[in-house]
Amino acid sequence: MSILVVGSVAIDSIKTPFGNRPEALGGSATYFSTAASFFSKVNIVATVGEDFPKKYINLFKSRGIGVKGLHVAKGKTFRWKGWYDYDLNTAHTVSTHLNVFQNFRPEVPREWKNSKFVFLANIDPELQYNVLKQVHRPKLVACDSMNYWLEHKKKEFERLLDKVDIILLNDSEARQFTGEPNLMRAARIIISFGPRAVIIKKGEHGVIYFSKKTHFIAPAYLLETVYDPTGAGDTFAGGMVGYLSKVGKVDEHTIRKSIIYGSILASFAVEDFSIDRMLEISKSDIEARYKHFSAITKF
Amino acid sequence: MSILVVGSVAIDSIKTPFGNRPEALGGSATYFSTAASFFSKVNIVATVGEDFPKKYINLFKSRGIGVKGLHVAKGKTFRWKGWYDYDLNTAHTVSTHLNVFQNFRPEVPREWKNSKFVFLANIDPELQYNVLKQVHRPKLVACDSMNYWLEHKKKEFERLLDKVDIILLNDSEARQFTGEPNLMRAARIIISFGPRAVIIKKGEHGVIYFSKKTHFIAPAYLLETVYDPTGAGDTFAGGMVGYLSKVGKVDEHTIRKSIIYGSILASFAVEDFSIDRMLEISKSDIEARYKHFSAITKF
Repeated sequence: MSILVVGSVAIDSIKTPFGNRPEALGGSATYFSTAASFFSKVNIVATVGEDFPKKYINLFKSRGIGVKGLHVAKGKTFRWKGWYDYDLNTAHTVSTHLNVFQNFRPEVPREWKNSKFVFLANIDPELQYNVLKQVHRPKLVACDSMNYWLEHKKKEFERLLDKVDIILLNDSEARQFTGEPNLMRAARIIISFGPRAVIIKKGEHGVIYFSKKTHFIAPAYLLETVYDPTGAGDTFAGGMVGYLSKVGKVDEHTIRKSIIYGSILASFAVEDFSIDRMLEISKSDIEARYKHFSAITKF
Repeated sequence: MSILVVGSVAIDSIKTPFGNRPEALGGSATYFSTAASFFSKVNIVATVGEDFPKKYINLFKSRGIGVKGLHVAKGKTFRWKGWYDYDLNTAHTVSTHLNVFQNFRPEVPREWKNSKFVFLANIDPELQYNVLKQVHRPKLVACDSMNYWLEHKKKEFERLLDKVDIILLNDSEARQFTGEPNLMRAARIIISFGPRAVIIKKGEHGVIYFSKKTHFIAPAYLLETVYDPTGAGDTFAGGMVGYLSKVGKVDEHTIRKSIIYGSILASFAVEDFSIDRMLEISKSDIEARYKHFSAITKF
């Protein structure tokens, strides 16, 4: 089943202790759709400027990613410039130029309105809500957000929560939104707003999935080399939703497997800048790492 | 098979956001032996002062913990006073009075020199080394340490590493000792000093076990209530070595299971002050939580 992702397509300039990459392809929809494309057909709704390199659009197309909803607007593409220290946990922003992204009003092309799997990447919760009004009865809606919206659009975010199936937040966002330091209690508060499940992302420490009845703890795949953590969360979501869409089921068993696939895709993504590492790997690399992940967590 | 533990028996005064507990039973050997006593006979070598309450010695005895090596010295018992903030990750020390512990020179009673399982809790690595000279060909030696020794007795610690089978360190200690931020590389450096394996403890994020050939990642059991994290690491070691000693094997499969038992014991320990929670539970509580742990990590 095909996936609809609404988010950003951007140009990032990134510096880490291991190198420097100016003007690289970035954005939540980019990471998500690249990861998801290993499993399913995925369609992007986003906006870029007239300066957006044609080669990247061709790259999307070559991976079967639908670009009909990738609107080219008058002006420049969203640009983010930032750097990471040795711990690689905190992104330090040098500059953010929203450019055409500032006026982004997502419009879902008619032929995508029946998408069964929808991922709302981190944008204004009002826009996310508006996207949901455009799609017809999807099987699964997953949604991401960030500290800025939780602080400045709390009400809008809460209204959205009631309309999504799985909300993804990182641990500090979950604590911030609920005011509860304990993740188990924080998850319960979040679920009380309506979503079926919450996934709390802990970076290098893995993720915890909470549903109303149970939870599932997954460590992260351990790496010897992390080059650039940008996009890890969106890549995780792409691997996860991609796998769910491929299987076409959203039961607990499938969700658990999808979370591991999400972690595996993220583990590849951070091994190089931008989506470069994902462009190098094949499905069999993913399967091999999935097997290894099983082996190193079994007891 | 019986276990020998060499470490501290202390009186702790602890404050957390959830309460205040003055003059509680503490110390590495206390936490370790209480946890291990669910699985095996365990014998303590430690020192206390004349003020050490007799009721605690009776408590040890009632759990089958050997106290022949618990030396009562002239003076006062080791006392630690500290507090934790809401994050519960960092212990803030108010005062440390080593008292009789300052002159602790561990002497292993003759009938314990054939102990098959030995745990060297966090004391001066010279003393830990000296204990190993007193025991005859143990099947497994596990060892803990702390940042102070890694800094001030690095050479002695390195010499010790070559004589132990499993070294337990927390993540910041492993990074400090090796100067390597990546845990996989740090573990490889530590193993190059001689131990068969290293366990890196990440607190609420679980542990990673590294042997020469492979590794095993175990998340921590998720809790809704953490009252007092004091002694969690020693409790983990007690559950782990206790289970290994009960099974009498130290193969990879058994070690993995022992790590989960260690995590389970630690998860109980932090649910109350001192060893109080461990005194409430039975073997069937441990088994039930082990089963639940399996259920929430399987995929």
